[in-house]
Amino acid sequence: MQTPSQAPTGTSFTIRMRATPDLHASGAIVEAVTGLGAVITGLDMVDPGHDTITLDLSCTTGHVGQEAFLAEALEALEGCTVVHVSDSVFLMHLGGKLEVQPTVPMHNRMDLARAYTPGVARVCLAIANNPADARNLTIKRNSVAVVTDGTAVLGLGDLGPEAALPVMEGKAALFKRFANVDAWPICLNTKDVDEIVRTVELIAPGFGGINLEDISAPRCFEVERRLRDRLTIPVFHDDQHGTAVVVLAALVNAARLVGKELATLQIVMVGAGAAGAAVANLLLRAGVQSIIAFDSKGPIYDGRPGLDADRQALAARTNRNGHRGSLREAMVGADVFIGLSQPNIISADDVARMAPNAIVFALANPEPEIHPAEAGRHAAVVATGRSDLPNQINNVLAFPGIFRGLLDSGAHKINDEVLLAAAEAIAQIVNDEALSAIYIVPSVFDPAVAPAVADAVARVASRL
Amino acid sequence: MQTPSQAPTGTSFTIRMRATPDLHASGAIVEAVTGLGAVITGLDMVDPGHDTITLDLSCTTGHVGQEAFLAEALEALEGCTVVHVSDSVFLMHLGGKLEVQPTVPMHNRMDLARAYTPGVARVCLAIANNPADARNLTIKRNSVAVVTDGTAVLGLGDLGPEAALPVMEGKAALFKRFANVDAWPICLNTKDVDEIVRTVELIAPGFGGINLEDISAPRCFEVERRLRDRLTIPVFHDDQHGTAVVVLAALVNAARLVGKELATLQIVMVGAGAAGAAVANLLLRAGVQSIIAFDSKGPIYDGRPGLDADRQALAARTNRNGHRGSLREAMVGADVFIGLSQPNIISADDVARMAPNAIVFALANPEPEIHPAEAGRHAAVVATGRSDLPNQINNVLAFPGIFRGLLDSGAHKINDEVLLAAAEAIAQIVNDEALSAIYIVPSVFDPAVAPAVADAVARVASRL
Repeated sequence: MQTPSQAPTGTSFTIRMRATPDLHASGAIVEAVTGLGAVITGLDMVDPGHDTITLDLSCTTGHVGQEAFLAEALEALEGCTVVHVSDSVFLMHLGGKLEVQPTVPMHNRMDLARAYTPGVARVCLAIANNPADARNLTIKRNSVAVVTDGTAVLGLGDLGPEAALPVMEGKAALFKRFANVDAWPICLNTKDVDEIVRTVELIAPGFGGINLEDISAPRCFEVERRLRDRLTIPVFHDDQHGTAVVVLAALVNAARLVGKELATLQIVMVGAGAAGAAVANLLLRAGVQSIIAFDSKGPIYDGRPGLDADRQALAARTNRNGHRGSLREAMVGADVFIGLSQPNIISADDVARMAPNAIVFALANPEPEIHPAEAGRHAAVVATGRSDLPNQINNVLAFPGIFRGLLDSGAHKINDEVLLAAAEAIAQIVNDEALSAIYIVPSVFDPAVAPAVADAVARVASRL
Repeated sequence: MQTPSQAPTGTSFTIRMRATPDLHASGAIVEAVTGLGAVITGLDMVDPGHDTITLDLSCTTGHVGQEAFLAEALEALEGCTVVHVSDSVFLMHLGGKLEVQPTVPMHNRMDLARAYTPGVARVCLAIANNPADARNLTIKRNSVAVVTDGTAVLGLGDLGPEAALPVMEGKAALFKRFANVDAWPICLNTKDVDEIVRTVELIAPGFGGINLEDISAPRCFEVERRLRDRLTIPVFHDDQHGTAVVVLAALVNAARLVGKELATLQIVMVGAGAAGAAVANLLLRAGVQSIIAFDSKGPIYDGRPGLDADRQALAARTNRNGHRGSLREAMVGADVFIGLSQPNIISADDVARMAPNAIVFALANPEPEIHPAEAGRHAAVVATGRSDLPNQINNVLAFPGIFRGLLDSGAHKINDEVLLAAAEAIAQIVNDEALSAIYIVPSVFDPAVAPAVADAVARVASRL
C-alpha cells in the first residue's frame, strides 16, 4: 500500500533536453531517471542533429515535485542540458477545460432562421406569456451555475475567484461526465454575503439549479439559507450536503456490516465547518441519536461561551450529556469517529479504546486524521477521502445524480428528504454480497450510481 | 422577389391528424394543403388503424401563422380531425440550444487526478500567485458572458430575463459557430443600472469579455460606460457597436461604389436609440462630417428642449447647420439615408429628391423604413436587415470576429479604433471585382469574414 505521504496518483511530465548522440547511445539518460524511481513512458527524438540532439523524455513519478530532482540529475550528466520541463497537469489546463457547443445545427440560413431570428422571436413570446415554458424551451432545463467566491478553494483557503476557476471547471466537467448536466462556473469577485446572495438571485433566471462551492464557513450557511428562501430553483452547497450525503451512505453501510443500528451509535465528530455541520444535521435526520462534535476549541456543548448562531444550533441538537472533556476522553467507547478536520489528530490507541467493531472515517485530505493502516489495526471499517485507499468518501458519488434528479423533476426546492433519498440510493448500490470492510461505498466510476441517485431524488423532489 | 410582408424564410410544422382511410386515399388531404400554397415535405402514417388512421403531415409555408388556416382546412374535410400542430421552431428549442462539454478526457482515475483533485490544486496555486495566468490556464481564455436584462428583446421590447434566454442562446451558438468563442447567457432579473453594473462586475473574473445584449436605451449607454471604466476585460454592447461596425463597412463600400468620399457625404439618420447613437458616433470617427439624426420627436439639434445627456452629446456632434425641419425636408439633396427606426416612414418620392447616386440603408426589421424595391427605383444602393434581400446588414458579420480578436490578443479594453479596424476588415472582404449595387457586404456564411475581422481587431487591441 502506498503511504499517505506520497501523492495519491502519479504526476507526469515531459523534460526537453539537448544531449550528445553518444550520451543518448550510452543509456545513461534512462539510467539517471529510472535510478530516481521514475517510470519512463517515452524518449522521443525532437531534433536529430549531428553534434547535438534534442530529446523529449516523458515520465511519471509517484512523488510531487520530483521533476526538479530529475532535471538536476540530467543536468549533472556530461553533455546534457535541460531545456524545459512541462507538467502534464498544466498542459491539460491550457485554455481551460470546458467549451460551449450548440446542440442545434447552425449550417445554413434555414438553421439560423429557426435557432435565431426571426424564428426565435416566437419562442421568446411563448415564454413571456408563460414563464414556466423556460424550463422546456431553454437551457434552464439542464443548466446549473457552479458558484464560488474563492474563499475556501479545496483545502487551500482564500485564493480568490480567478484561482478558484480551475476547480469550478473541473466540477462542471464532472457534472457533464457523470450526469449530463450542463454546468457553468460563476466566480464572484466579492466576499460580502449580501452581494453574493443578490448576485446569484439576479443571475438565477437562466439556470435550473445553483451549486455553491468552496465558500468558507460560516458565510456559506447564511448564503445558502437566504438563497433557498428567495429562489424558485434548488440551491445546494456541495461542500456541505454532498459530503453529508456520501458520509451518511457510507455510515449506513458500515453499520449494516457491523450489525449496529444508526439510532444506537455513539458518534464522535471532529470539524464543525461547512461539511461538519451538514454531516451532523443529516445524520440526526437519518435517525442518529448521539453525536459529540468538536471544533478547534474543543467539544461543542450548549452554553459554551462564544458560539455563533450556527454552532449554537449544532450544540442544541448534539452532545446531550454535555461532554466537556477532551477528544481522547470522548472516543472511549464510541462506535464511530468522523474526522472532517486536519491530519494526524487521533492515534491508534484512541481507536483501540473505541467500542468493538469501531468505524473510523478519517476524511481530511490528502492527509487523514489518522494513518488508515494504524486505524485499521483496531477498527472494523476505515474510510478516507483518498482515491488510493479503500472506501473513498467522494462527493462525485452524490452531486451529479442529485442535480440530474432535481432538473428532471423540475424541482423548485431541495430539502433534507431529498438528501436522505440520495444517501439511501448510494448505499443500496452496494448489495449484501459485495458489502465488506473494504467496500462500503461504490466506486466513483460505477455507472449505476448517478442514475440511481437521480431516480431517488426525482421521486422525492417532484413532490416539493 | 418576395415582398416584405411575407416571412423572410419559410416556417415548417407538422400536423397530426386522424382521418378515414378513404379520405387519405382520395388525395383530398394533399389537395387541401397545397391549395393554400403550402409545400408538403412528408405525409407519414403513424397508426394504420382499420376505421381510423393517424397521419403526420409535415409541410413548409412562407406565411407566418398559416398553420392555423391549414388546420382549419383539414378540419373542414369530412372524416378528418386535427390532433395537434407541432412547430419545427419549437421542436428545435426543446431543452435549449447549448451544452457544456469538457475539453479534457474524464475517463479514468488518472484523468480525474489531473483535471480535478489533487492535480488541479497546483494550477489554482499558480493562478493565485500570478492572476494573469488565468488567461492561459482557464476558460477565461476563450469565454464571453452574453448579458441581458431582457428589456429590449429583438424588436419585441421588455419581455424579461427568461423570455430573452432563447435569443442569448442563439447568440452564444453563433459565437461558437462563427469564431469558436465559448459564450454563456447571463439573464439578469433586474432593470436597475446600478445592479446590472455591479452584477456584471462581480461575475467578470471567469470571463474574457462581456457582450451586452438587448438592454434598452438609454440605460444601455450608462451600463456600458460604467463597466468599461471598471473592468479589465472588454465590454461590447452588440446592439450598438455590432450594428455600427457593419453599417460603417457597408457605407464604406457603397461610397466606394458610387465614387463619393465619406467626408463629403450628407447623411440623414432616423432612430437615435442604442444602434443609432453608436452608428452616428462611429461614422463620425471614420471621417463622416455631416449627419442629421431624427428621433420620434423630430430632428436632434443642439438646444432642443428635453434632450437627455446622451442625445445632447449626439446633438453637439451632428446637425451642424441646426436643421429643425421635417425628415422629408432633410432628405432633399442627401447622399445617404440610414433608417434604424420603424416601417414605412419614407416614400419613393423622398428617395427621388436625394442627391444623385443615393444610398439607402433601411434597416428596420422585418419591415424596413421603405420597401426596398421602391427605394431601388431612385437609389443607387439599397441595403436592409433582411436575409432574403441583397446587402443584409447583419451583426453576425462583426461580433464573432471582434471577440475572437479581443480574446486572442488578451485585450483588456475595446475602443473605437478596434471598431474601425473591424469595419475596414469587413469592407475589404468585398474586392473591387465583386463590389456591386447588390453586393456591398459579404455573406454571413463567408468563412473569410471572422478570421479577417479577428486579425484586424487583434492587431489594434494588442496595443491597448
